[in-house]
Amino acid sequence: MIEDPLSDLPDLEDIRAAQARLAGVARRTPLIESEDLSALAGARVFLKCESLQRTGSFKIRGAWSRASKIPEKDRTLGLAAFSSGNHAQGVAEAARLMGVPAWIVMPSDAPRAKIESVRRRGANVRLYDRLGESREAIAEEIAARTGATLIRPFDDAYVIAGQGVAALEALEQARGAQFSDFLCCASGGGLMAGSAIVFSGVSPATRLHVCEPQGHDDHLRSLEAGRLVANPPGVRSMADALMAPQPGDLTFRINKTRLAGGFAVSDDDLRAAMSYGFHRLRLVLEPGGATALAALLANPGAFAGRGPLLVMLSGGNVDPEIFAAAIARVPEDPDFTAGGRV
Amino acid sequence: MIEDPLSDLPDLEDIRAAQARLAGVARRTPLIESEDLSALAGARVFLKCESLQRTGSFKIRGAWSRASKIPEKDRTLGLAAFSSGNHAQGVAEAARLMGVPAWIVMPSDAPRAKIESVRRRGANVRLYDRLGESREAIAEEIAARTGATLIRPFDDAYVIAGQGVAALEALEQARGAQFSDFLCCASGGGLMAGSAIVFSGVSPATRLHVCEPQGHDDHLRSLEAGRLVANPPGVRSMADALMAPQPGDLTFRINKTRLAGGFAVSDDDLRAAMSYGFHRLRLVLEPGGATALAALLANPGAFAGRGPLLVMLSGGNVDPEIFAAAIARVPEDPDFTAGGRV
Repeated sequence: MIEDPLSDLPDLEDIRAAQARLAGVARRTPLIESEDLSALAGARVFLKCESLQRTGSFKIRGAWSRASKIPEKDRTLGLAAFSSGNHAQGVAEAARLMGVPAWIVMPSDAPRAKIESVRRRGANVRLYDRLGESREAIAEEIAARTGATLIRPFDDAYVIAGQGVAALEALEQARGAQFSDFLCCASGGGLMAGSAIVFSGVSPATRLHVCEPQGHDDHLRSLEAGRLVANPPGVRSMADALMAPQPGDLTFRINKTRLAGGFAVSDDDLRAAMSYGFHRLRLVLEPGGATALAALLANPGAFAGRGPLLVMLSGGNVDPEIFAAAIARVPEDPDFTAGGRV
Repeated sequence: MIEDPLSDLPDLEDIRAAQARLAGVARRTPLIESEDLSALAGARVFLKCESLQRTGSFKIRGAWSRASKIPEKDRTLGLAAFSSGNHAQGVAEAARLMGVPAWIVMPSDAPRAKIESVRRRGANVRLYDRLGESREAIAEEIAARTGATLIRPFDDAYVIAGQGVAALEALEQARGAQFSDFLCCASGGGLMAGSAIVFSGVSPATRLHVCEPQGHDDHLRSLEAGRLVANPPGVRSMADALMAPQPGDLTFRINKTRLAGGFAVSDDDLRAAMSYGFHRLRLVLEPGGATALAALLANPGAFAGRGPLLVMLSGGNVDPEIFAAAIARVPEDPDFTAGGRV
């Protein structure tokens, strides 16, 4: 039971309540078993395709989960958010569906696809300089001036509960398959935290692995240190969606006791995963959305003999030239015929 | 009841029987409702994503449906096929799953992605010159020499029955939604014919529209003429999967009484549909697989006020440079906020 969403932690019942609120708004995204990927990993692999979610990422779940809890008189004043792009689209879409205004603070170097998608949904976009301005300060000023409710990207119990619905759905769709391992990306850690609550309650034996870009592996290093550790400043990654400076306070309170470990992947691993998505899965994945797949592909022996694995594909909003460059290199996979029927 | 698959026509019970044989082999592919596309079309649009099928197209359905009816003693001698690529992959995958050899006759200018996918599945590939050699003659010679069973791409009742399972699944997944219209590509016409049998039996009020590349609109012209009409020789289309010279005999016997009409689309329409798939749906579509979507996008007013529409996305096996060129042009869509909640 959430009383203050900025300090309370959600539980499994909160995630089930969020699932009910999301009905008819978020899609029940496909869970796909990939025979090719299973042969490669030596374990059955299931993919939860949040790249096929409304707005092209899971973020509409958390945005709607939070927005739908705003009292009616406040909701009409609108929604505000700061985000590199996917949370931005989620909040803009929630506002559009509610018929209320939205103000979105986005970095000026965000992918064009994400900025345009926010604009197409009728939101007011305020671009800021990632190096010289504080997005939190800008968003808070807008919220104070307009009366709009600021929807934080991860440190909010209703947002975390909404993101957890994706994992809950996947467990329902798997019809009793007991996942040995779950691979999921993290930036602020909301998707991982919501998922962790679901697994704790429904499938506690599943081992949870956080997957991050190298240099942005703040969850992995925080887990190892047993306390919040920030990323070194100035390190770039092509995973524009995963550039939060450190794990969230709420999300890390959840994740720190539940995660088994994690993987850090290079930009080259991300490009290889995007290419695999195109050539073998026929899915469009953005760099951040391909991070868990990249971790699996870069560590093909890590799960051999285990399984089934659940891999979260979290988003597919990528500019065409980035995608074109990634898919030019065709994946090399081992002899597909060796394993027989998989 | 099919006695001779080369002359009998399948009925709805044959398609249900094929569905049972396909369980555990073909995926139950996602049916996705696209809010963006619905706003654009002025009607609810559902997409049946056979691009996410095993082997990246619906063709595994027909191949397995046919192969699983071969008597055991013949089946061990292997399977043979001629195909520009997707049927080739379907037959190669069926043979791999059955643990029997496969011989596939493919044009030397087939997409590399398709040739490589067939080879990765362990099949023997015989390339031929599209202009100077007869693929049927080569395949029949191989079948006679090896004892392999030739699986024809469309003029076979078991193949047609297998392809029809995709539409049957879509109707099950739609849970009672009454589709006003069905848009589907055609080359030999097997997918359309199998679908037509399903709609005749389960949803007879649905209007069926065949979608073809310009210059390869042999179904549309055959419908208008009331008899089989071949394509003019030498016309090229980027839809490599849809280049059969004329409708099949069996398939046209089914389609000619059931189709309401159709659409012919240009290569530019196909590129626009592939781009829409990337930017708005996050799906990888090959030119042929995007043909029904292209027909909808090129005729946005044609279905306004009708719906729900069912659009078949039949395949996603495309070489990266073709895809990269198509997605470079971002779709222009009308103001997304005008329609409110869709």
